[in-house]
Amino acid sequence: MNTKPRPSVEESPSKSRLRLWLRILKTSRGIESILRENLRAEFGSTLPRFDVLAALSRHAQGLKMSQLSGVLKVSNGNVTGIVDRLVEDGLVIRVPVPGDRRASAVRLTKNGIEQFAVQAAAHEQWIDDLLHGFDAIEAEELAHQLDQIAQTKKDS
Amino acid sequence: MNTKPRPSVEESPSKSRLRLWLRILKTSRGIESILRENLRAEFGSTLPRFDVLAALSRHAQGLKMSQLSGVLKVSNGNVTGIVDRLVEDGLVIRVPVPGDRRASAVRLTKNGIEQFAVQAAAHEQWIDDLLHGFDAIEAEELAHQLDQIAQTKKDS
Repeated sequence: MNTKPRPSVEESPSKSRLRLWLRILKTSRGIESILRENLRAEFGSTLPRFDVLAALSRHAQGLKMSQLSGVLKVSNGNVTGIVDRLVEDGLVIRVPVPGDRRASAVRLTKNGIEQFAVQAAAHEQWIDDLLHGFDAIEAEELAHQLDQIAQTKKDS
Repeated sequence: MNTKPRPSVEESPSKSRLRLWLRILKTSRGIESILRENLRAEFGSTLPRFDVLAALSRHAQGLKMSQLSGVLKVSNGNVTGIVDRLVEDGLVIRVPVPGDRRASAVRLTKNGIEQFAVQAAAHEQWIDDLLHGFDAIEAEELAHQLDQIAQTKKDS
């Protein structure tokens, strides 16, 4: 028994939570689909490719392939194939890993840094347009609420 | 110039919106990954397979393969392969399409209806656990806020 008084809701909370999940999923897939299309149309690029560049942009000293695989796990990318193409395109170079002669790492080239800056700015603008119904405060609040879900998962 | 007074925010709204998007994406992928793992562990099933059963459960008279493809577009499933397996497993049968002798449709068998009811109940319970930090009202409010994003997209 729940001893706290609660506003009455027509259905069980589990139905509301299910609806929330379906809404999160739909929103996420919808935005991803727009981003994929924009990346293709504006830069002839893909989301996994963008994700690799984004990860490398946060690690100026480079990342091992295994670290990149972790990044790409969620975007279903084939990290070797994507890196090969980025190397061909001159956006990424392979570099030796200090202390591990068999490992291979990659980092952005100067051209890669410049290219990604352009794509990241466009990406931020697309998101800004898509989420323009939220002002900064609302966006932060909603992000915080979603953080609670992530927290819930870790606790369980 | 924005004439309405607003609470001060450290960064530009676009940064807050970008953070919100990354949070939506992370939440969505995190929950999907848990659902995939649970479906595999509990039912030896997959998310595309679950999505096909869910779609068929909403259409007792059956769905054409082309309609199912639309449903599965978002979950990267190979609809023919998935349906073939569901037919083998006795959860789905192929049925004629009235007025279209060349088209093929599928619907749930009695066993499929029962199986899906069990899986759907488990799925709802998993989501209920994952989102237990939200009561029904909060879940509805957040779902409504996410609806606004979908609306934004349609308007743009």
